[in-house]
Amino acid sequence: MTARPVRHLLGIDGLSKEAALQLLDAARAFWEMNRRAVKKAPTLRGRTVINLFFENSTRTRTSFELAGKRLSADVVNISASTSSTKKGETLRDTVATLDSMAPDVVVIRHSASGAPHFVAKRTRAAVINAGDGLHEHPTQALLDAFTIRHHKGSIEGLEVLICGDVTHSRVARSNILLLSLLGAKVRVAGPRTLLPREVESLGVRVFHDLPAALEGVDVVMTLRIQQERLVNALIPNTREYSRTFGIDARRLALAKRDAIVMHPGPLNRGVEISDEVADGPQSAVLDQVEAGVAVRMAVLYAYTPGGPHSDPSSE
Amino acid sequence: MTARPVRHLLGIDGLSKEAALQLLDAARAFWEMNRRAVKKAPTLRGRTVINLFFENSTRTRTSFELAGKRLSADVVNISASTSSTKKGETLRDTVATLDSMAPDVVVIRHSASGAPHFVAKRTRAAVINAGDGLHEHPTQALLDAFTIRHHKGSIEGLEVLICGDVTHSRVARSNILLLSLLGAKVRVAGPRTLLPREVESLGVRVFHDLPAALEGVDVVMTLRIQQERLVNALIPNTREYSRTFGIDARRLALAKRDAIVMHPGPLNRGVEISDEVADGPQSAVLDQVEAGVAVRMAVLYAYTPGGPHSDPSSE
Amino acid sequence: MTARPVRHLLGIDGLSKEAALQLLDAARAFWEMNRRAVKKAPTLRGRTVINLFFENSTRTRTSFELAGKRLSADVVNISASTSSTKKGETLRDTVATLDSMAPDVVVIRHSASGAPHFVAKRTRAAVINAGDGLHEHPTQALLDAFTIRHHKGSIEGLEVLICGDVTHSRVARSNILLLSLLGAKVRVAGPRTLLPREVESLGVRVFHDLPAALEGVDVVMTLRIQQERLVNALIPNTREYSRTFGIDARRLALAKRDAIVMHPGPLNRGVEISDEVADGPQSAVLDQVEAGVAVRMAVLYAYTPGGPHSDPSSE
Repeated sequence: MTARPVRHLLGIDGLSKEAALQLLDAARAFWEMNRRAVKKAPTLRGRTVINLFFENSTRTRTSFELAGKRLSADVVNISASTSSTKKGETLRDTVATLDSMAPDVVVIRHSASGAPHFVAKRTRAAVINAGDGLHEHPTQALLDAFTIRHHKGSIEGLEVLICGDVTHSRVARSNILLLSLLGAKVRVAGPRTLLPREVESLGVRVFHDLPAALEGVDVVMTLRIQQERLVNALIPNTREYSRTFGIDARRLALAKRDAIVMHPGPLNRGVEISDEVADGPQSAVLDQVEAGVAVRMAVLYAYTPGGPHSDPSSE
Repeated sequence: MTARPVRHLLGIDGLSKEAALQLLDAARAFWEMNRRAVKKAPTLRGRTVINLFFENSTRTRTSFELAGKRLSADVVNISASTSSTKKGETLRDTVATLDSMAPDVVVIRHSASGAPHFVAKRTRAAVINAGDGLHEHPTQALLDAFTIRHHKGSIEGLEVLICGDVTHSRVARSNILLLSLLGAKVRVAGPRTLLPREVESLGVRVFHDLPAALEGVDVVMTLRIQQERLVNALIPNTREYSRTFGIDARRLALAKRDAIVMHPGPLNRGVEISDEVADGPQSAVLDQVEAGVAVRMAVLYAYTPGGPHSDPSSE
Repeated sequence: MTARPVRHLLGIDGLSKEAALQLLDAARAFWEMNRRAVKKAPTLRGRTVINLFFENSTRTRTSFELAGKRLSADVVNISASTSSTKKGETLRDTVATLDSMAPDVVVIRHSASGAPHFVAKRTRAAVINAGDGLHEHPTQALLDAFTIRHHKGSIEGLEVLICGDVTHSRVARSNILLLSLLGAKVRVAGPRTLLPREVESLGVRVFHDLPAALEGVDVVMTLRIQQERLVNALIPNTREYSRTFGIDARRLALAKRDAIVMHPGPLNRGVEISDEVADGPQSAVLDQVEAGVAVRMAVLYAYTPGGPHSDPSSE
């Protein structure tokens, strides 16, 4: 379709600071459009976006679906539970099949780390990673960066704490990479069982004590505890976790007075975040969701091969 | 998005006669459009409609989906079985999340009475109740009223019988309210176990004998028997129910000669309605379905905040 | 909607050679459009296509969905697992209900042979058979014919081998009918337990020995083995099947040097087709998928009642 090689958004790893800032700037225009009554741009008219979700995520799928539709793309949702994978088809054949239907963008969520890279090698479409295993979730990091910028103006020099199960969080991983790239100073806090050994090599300060970690931070990003998976195995119980690493009003008071609190959702209220904080004036949780649609519009816009309406053979 | 407060359609309760008649009049134009080859109006272009279904209903979801698409809205379907509610997210957080994606209209079906009211307090979108527990199903009542008007010209002064499990029917409740509002005289008939004690306070005549109830009626509306729930608990068996309260040709002959027969679907043929009646010349069952799309178009049109293309900041 | 009777595509049986060639010619234009950046025609704007799938098939559903959307139709997907059929509604009532929502085209897949014919008698929409039981799958045959024409120029006089479980294959049945209609000489090969007795009456040569069957063929079409259903009942095991009727490079060398290999997917790699053949230079498997979207666009375009924009009452 285009002479230029197709670019993919497989992770924050590999993204330049300039490219990240361009996406965030472009997202700002879409953010404003989404606040108007008529939320529609003809940009991707006649382009095809496939949402290929091997893990359920209504939130992320809906965000990408709206992003595509508001850009006038044809959007098709495929969920693995009803797909040919049930008939024993390999991911490779599924992707080759979809590729032959000429999508411009394939948005993929998969439980296996690296699945989007595998897919990107086997399609002419641009591949957007919507979360792969324990690896990356780049649009989540971009929407988080958008939200921080929106509240703080710039990310450069901010102190950001990521708190919780960093080991099992692709959100944490992508955020550490992007926030560091954009000049923030990142700290992580959590039980020893939930912090990866190598995290310090990413230039991150590690805390096992929440009060110390909170001191002087501009942003507190708390992660979802996967209760079904962790309790008994890596943490004693959710009450104990909440007592030591949950963010409540008393703890939040240890951060800067104008610190904002973020969470990728869905919330475990009373576990990693208290009701008072989640619904309080410092919460940016819903701003993150709003940013999500805008950021995904910017990503679809930027990564669609050939660029919007740039192909002279079109129409 | 707009200075005027957002209006919701949470039930017939609270709707004025004038507003109901305006919706029915507007639906007439969409009804005609749906009979043309090109069934499309640009009215809601760039607006977002979310169909949030916590109970399965292909019929109602499809009707709303087509209504939104024929008005050029961006329509997103969310079914609870794949939503974050499975991950333990509260309805409150689900709604707050969706609200942050800037829908203009949220159509909600939920097994809990009052869920749409709960949602309406927590979103800037207009909320349309697509059926909540045992409470209301206002678009069903509106499409039923449209159908009666279509056949009878006016609803004022008509004798309407609602027959069956009134106690467990949001359809019956919304119809009693709307038909009374529009000047019909409503009767209900059914086994004592399936008629609510307080129904007479709604100005309705109660019959426990079907032949007497049918005498002189213009409209027979028979309700679906939820076999799995009722048999053994509240009715002896479906054969006994059919014998005493099923509408067959012999019974229907007791109503006015030009009486029409209605049913909200799906039909339990041979239980609450016989094949002969369901497929006979007096059946308006399919007219109801046709009216459904038109009425929902009128509802989406009327309730979209800011009105269609009325926002000067748009585009 | 139109004075002309509505035409349906229920099978290849009943299709004229002229009509088939017209569809294949029309598909060529859509095939080219699908290779452009902007894949969109306004042809079916305001028309409604319902994908009514009683069997899961992500591949076929996605192909029809994209075909409809790229022609600007409003497309609604209905899968039986969430439909009213779960509430005991009959197919007849489901169809009557959908018909009342004024679809222009109903695409149906069903496990019962003849279901599309049943539906066609009960709707004013055009019915497209997307696979019914062991009966027919006409759009698969058309996309296969498109693919053969693409590679071979013409179908007239070609030797085509269909190999595998012919008895249980609607794909085989539709292909035998269409390829014969278009002038190909068709052979079938497979174990005696998987070849229908009456196949010779269709003008097909029958082989029980794969090497003999392959001699001199231009096209090798191998069918999917339904492992769950066949093993132990009709074939000893998949290894044995693969050894005698699987297509591998050694076997393929027995066909003409420029023979192409086709498969309706999804592939059982290592059973009916080897990796080497599936991914080799003679494989046309992905061309089939590409042809699928184009052929379905041609079918939707041709069968939409009243023709595109031909109704003077429209708009």
